[in-house]
Amino acid sequence: MAARRGDTLLFPTPPVVAAHAAIGGKKEGEGPLAACFDELSADNFFGQSNWEAAEKEMALRAARLCLKKAETTPDNVSLALAGDLQAQCTASSYALRELGIPFVGLFGACSTMAEALGLGAALCSAGMADGLLAMTSSHFCAAERQFRTPLSYGAVRTPTAQWTATAAGACLLRPAGEGVQLCAATFGRVQDYKIKDINNMGAAMAPAAAATLLHYLKDTGSAPADFDRIYTGDLGHVGSQLLRDLLAAEGLLLKNHVDCGCILYDAAEQTVKSGGSGPGCCASVLCGHILPRLEKGTQKRVLFIATGALMSQTTFLQKESIPAIAHLVELRSPQQKEENG
Amino acid sequence: MAARRGDTLLFPTPPVVAAHAAIGGKKEGEGPLAACFDELSADNFFGQSNWEAAEKEMALRAARLCLKKAETTPDNVSLALAGDLQAQCTASSYALRELGIPFVGLFGACSTMAEALGLGAALCSAGMADGLLAMTSSHFCAAERQFRTPLSYGAVRTPTAQWTATAAGACLLRPAGEGVQLCAATFGRVQDYKIKDINNMGAAMAPAAAATLLHYLKDTGSAPADFDRIYTGDLGHVGSQLLRDLLAAEGLLLKNHVDCGCILYDAAEQTVKSGGSGPGCCASVLCGHILPRLEKGTQKRVLFIATGALMSQTTFLQKESIPAIAHLVELRSPQQKEENG
Repeated sequence: MAARRGDTLLFPTPPVVAAHAAIGGKKEGEGPLAACFDELSADNFFGQSNWEAAEKEMALRAARLCLKKAETTPDNVSLALAGDLQAQCTASSYALRELGIPFVGLFGACSTMAEALGLGAALCSAGMADGLLAMTSSHFCAAERQFRTPLSYGAVRTPTAQWTATAAGACLLRPAGEGVQLCAATFGRVQDYKIKDINNMGAAMAPAAAATLLHYLKDTGSAPADFDRIYTGDLGHVGSQLLRDLLAAEGLLLKNHVDCGCILYDAAEQTVKSGGSGPGCCASVLCGHILPRLEKGTQKRVLFIATGALMSQTTFLQKESIPAIAHLVELRSPQQKEENG
Repeated sequence: MAARRGDTLLFPTPPVVAAHAAIGGKKEGEGPLAACFDELSADNFFGQSNWEAAEKEMALRAARLCLKKAETTPDNVSLALAGDLQAQCTASSYALRELGIPFVGLFGACSTMAEALGLGAALCSAGMADGLLAMTSSHFCAAERQFRTPLSYGAVRTPTAQWTATAAGACLLRPAGEGVQLCAATFGRVQDYKIKDINNMGAAMAPAAAATLLHYLKDTGSAPADFDRIYTGDLGHVGSQLLRDLLAAEGLLLKNHVDCGCILYDAAEQTVKSGGSGPGCCASVLCGHILPRLEKGTQKRVLFIATGALMSQTTFLQKESIPAIAHLVELRSPQQKEENG
């Protein structure tokens, strides 16, 4: 049975990530994490006729590959938790139309993967789901024309802009068994530092990451040094520096921080400006890079904090500021079971 | 501790709806359920400068009124589950920015209220939330310009079209205590009968309502006659007839079915064509009409099945068909506690 301390849910008998898969597009296959992906497509259309359908196809492939790795089928999955950046989350809904699994749609923008993992761990730990699929995706071309300008306009990118990853990640959670353990989850509160620049998501999201991390540390009585890594996604270079500044102002020195948006691409070589973003960015880095390290035991205990900017193109044009949220899950290596609890 | 049977979660110690509030706009105040609303605004702008901000304001008022009725404050609420129809669910996110409660964003289109109640009941019953806010909203003017055409174009409405309610509903759930009991929840699977007419949501959603109801009846071994009412939201007149036809084909005669979209407006007098829709439609009918009847004991046991159409304007223009989903919660009157379990 889970316990709640402040904003944090603790799972003394932790659910596990039984399987996971990461799919990426062309640019992701040219980056430093190329070898981490299960599948890379040189065709960003993924055989479809438009970008939105391409994203759906990519999400579907990630889910199917994840189920295959777990040697199971959609029939044996209790629930899927999924969402994405497209208006009305259509990449996820259309992918779930194909899978036919009971489906709870989420919206957390780029925070969706941690939101799905936290909620999924809660449901699994309470015996309400056996196999549970947590998944999300993003597509650079679908996101650019929705949030900014159609690509064919050739708009110049500012130095603070981030590159929405063409990527998808899927995890199959189980109440117990082999796999990386989900030991705690903290759901975030909306933060808004009055950023209005739609090309500076990192600045909008950094306060949300700081707030959720501070809640988790207070709720659990832990310190940043207790973790091998504190991963955020996806603040980029600008947002990461702001996060460290915000935490320094609280007296916390963050030496073990890595942002998924900073490691997915080579910022200089791949002209991604401040780094990667999009729900698929940290989801694919989680599935392809973070979880394998925990499985091998080269990392024992990490925090995964996914951040989301909650504006729309409409609220941007209405000159609203950009609210943001961050959700956190604590992950532990299966190689270190004695430390749980 | 909850049990899972098929797609259905059963809550032997049922969480309760400790308080609820419904807010509506001008047209809702002219309809047959006007007296059911806690607050009606003749100003559909709700004092704001645009329709999207008006919806946020309405959602916020519903949440605050709900908390006031429960004699509590946002500080004492563990979690909010909310979503809406606006792209990137901005009505909910911006409302939660004001409330400052830990926030899990949902996307279920018009099914959001049942999705939030089902998930909320699961979390409350597992001891993971004390006070939990389940809320949603919709605004006719924001929805029309997003999904169809701006109102100023004066487009003619077809007979199958539904009228998106300008309304919001909010429920405060608690693990136990006084209030209508949440005894079971069934999360739906996406259904798609290849409807492509964006002015016929009822036809797109009826198969989803049928599928989820059939799952629930099979999982629990119950029959439609076991309930005082089976409420759907929001199929409208066209979709309601299709639902009854689909169930008749399965050998089920539905005599106690009421659709929230059919009772919110007077279809003939108020020129709403096939009836009401939008997440706020069934949410406000639930909070203003269904829950009070259960509280008084004039109804003992009902099903609340909220249906959502999961397309976007983009997928519509791409000539995709409209997938739909329905989520179900079983509600029982606090006047009949001996029947629980």
